[in-house]
Amino acid sequence: MQAIGNILTFITEIEKLKDIQRKSRPIGLKRYENSAEHSWHVALSALVLKDYANEPVNIERVIKMMLIHDLGEIEAGDTIIYSSETAELKSKEKTCIAKLFTNIQPDLKDELLVLWEEFETGKSADAKFAKAIDRLPPLLHNIHDEGHGWKKHGITKEQVFALNSARIGAGSEKLWSAVEQKLNKAVEDGFLS
Amino acid sequence: MQAIGNILTFITEIEKLKDIQRKSRPIGLKRYENSAEHSWHVALSALVLKDYANEPVNIERVIKMMLIHDLGEIEAGDTIIYSSETAELKSKEKTCIAKLFTNIQPDLKDELLVLWEEFETGKSADAKFAKAIDRLPPLLHNIHDEGHGWKKHGITKEQVFALNSARIGAGSEKLWSAVEQKLNKAVEDGFLS
Repeated sequence: MQAIGNILTFITEIEKLKDIQRKSRPIGLKRYENSAEHSWHVALSALVLKDYANEPVNIERVIKMMLIHDLGEIEAGDTIIYSSETAELKSKEKTCIAKLFTNIQPDLKDELLVLWEEFETGKSADAKFAKAIDRLPPLLHNIHDEGHGWKKHGITKEQVFALNSARIGAGSEKLWSAVEQKLNKAVEDGFLS
Repeated sequence: MQAIGNILTFITEIEKLKDIQRKSRPIGLKRYENSAEHSWHVALSALVLKDYANEPVNIERVIKMMLIHDLGEIEAGDTIIYSSETAELKSKEKTCIAKLFTNIQPDLKDELLVLWEEFETGKSADAKFAKAIDRLPPLLHNIHDEGHGWKKHGITKEQVFALNSARIGAGSEKLWSAVEQKLNKAVEDGFLS
């Protein structure tokens, strides 16, 4: 009974991800996205895009990565990707993850810690694909929102193309080709410069 | 390129789930939950509770069910479970699902339609567990929110115990035992009567 109680505490704790505000607004909405709904969106996006990965992926592992990849933000907060990937921030997220997972059963805890680290390292086929998918929704948001987030944070087209061609291309060249077309259109439309 | 374009359209369409408001508020928040963040929460809750299922489950199938189980609400909206499970509503959700999945690649579309139907039917071990987990967060919300949703919608303790003992118990007796204790405490505290 104590063990299941610990898991219910974890399920209660992770609710906090619903209060972590991101930098872009879901299409058609005037509020910012939170990291919990983002995590759902990228998990399901990965599933429907699995056939476009550069290398074969284990989609069930990718989905689990997506479900937990932002949990470190519960203590570290969400930061814009174009300036955020510092060692200090990653260390803070890792401490948060270790604390959150304390009461999960050992075999599952080990599996989840491996998946979280693997995503952060971004070297495996699964992690490269997961990191590519993670980039997709904020780009679609900005494209549909007249570049709201890019403009607000002073992000240039050079930054957008450099980071995303590398990140998305490493996981799915086909996805990058499709996104690149949409970004070129956003530049033409004056949403990104 | 057309095929991936269709999938990006799907990914854009399902954003609408972030605007479907549910009947309870995430713990600590003063706004209502939406069905997208709920879908994330139950997918991850299922994973950490998998060892407590009455029968062995394929947790990867359960997670996929959770990711898609509420997509029908994009057209049908969210309704309170104590009065909502009508044939008319289910038919509306099914039509919405069929339309949403039109442009998904055929093999994956078939897999997702089977999972969606299986969840709705609720007879398999995976579906019974998924439906049990789906009930957990609104109960935790109400318990932590002084019964806000129950009171607002005039839900009685008899309704709460009848529906949830059956629904949660069918998927996980151990989870029901843990939740039942919390509900008894909520009755003592005057949050549910």
